[in-house]
Amino acid sequence: MTTPPPILYHPIGVLHTPFNEPAGMPIQPSGARGVCGTAELYPEFVAGLRDLAGFSHIILLYHFHRAPAPRLSVTPFLDTEARGIFATRAPARPNPIGLSIVRLLRCEGATLYLENLDMLDGTPLLDIKPYVSAFDSFVAERTGWLEAAEGRVAQIRADERFGES
Amino acid sequence: MTTPPPILYHPIGVLHTPFNEPAGMPIQPSGARGVCGTAELYPEFVAGLRDLAGFSHIILLYHFHRAPAPRLSVTPFLDTEARGIFATRAPARPNPIGLSIVRLLRCEGATLYLENLDMLDGTPLLDIKPYVSAFDSFVAERTGWLEAAEGRVAQIRADERFGES
Repeated sequence: MTTPPPILYHPIGVLHTPFNEPAGMPIQPSGARGVCGTAELYPEFVAGLRDLAGFSHIILLYHFHRAPAPRLSVTPFLDTEARGIFATRAPARPNPIGLSIVRLLRCEGATLYLENLDMLDGTPLLDIKPYVSAFDSFVAERTGWLEAAEGRVAQIRADERFGES
Repeated sequence: MTTPPPILYHPIGVLHTPFNEPAGMPIQPSGARGVCGTAELYPEFVAGLRDLAGFSHIILLYHFHRAPAPRLSVTPFLDTEARGIFATRAPARPNPIGLSIVRLLRCEGATLYLENLDMLDGTPLLDIKPYVSAFDSFVAERTGWLEAAEGRVAQIRADERFGES
């Protein structure tokens, strides 16, 4: 197998949230109910926001800019055992892309007003997609190690383990 | 605003699917029921798959490697009007990252056997995350321009419009 070429992306904007440090943050949007902030798009991308205001929920893809070096095995916040990184949502991933589904309150020019934010202030934004239940909502029959833990997600807060490396 | 630094990612593997050309493809996993294929991880990332087999659904993030040049306004397959790119799931995005939630049939070494695949053969894989209903399933009260169209997603097939540029 030959090594594939690297892929280069450019942030389309930046996320502004109340969280300046990883420790104490919610670990998913479901633990961040009512946490408001904004996405500020760079001027050259604002035209791409047309028609977005009609959606109640949007998918944010962003770069975990303060993630530690990638690890293939991590102990997630919701567990006490080490798990394969791809079986977790931890930021210490080979490609540290974060995914959060958040509520879109309104759009004003280059600014999206958002609720249920679970990422650090200053996070570079890579993409915005409309959330569509028909595409994105599934009943997962099996959720592996998370089955015992997923109900606790709203109570658990991040600690230092995935802070800067 | 200063220009942010670009972000460099490296594929973790490649997706093998029955689709060699964009035209005729399903446009979402919900239009790709029963379409099987694999994700082949590069050897250095295989250890990260531990514990993944327990999940019935996984989120794939991948690079639209044959997407045309980005456009801020596109006419989606499900519509006849031009829409802002961020209000669509079209591949001609500023950062062409694809997102599909697929069924994980089984894991064997570096190979994931998958169902409901809606991407091209040879697509570079960027990340795998477990799909967890408690994190990822929402009732979207408003789905904008897609409200009239989302029920037709399983019937519609791609055409040439987002083929290579």
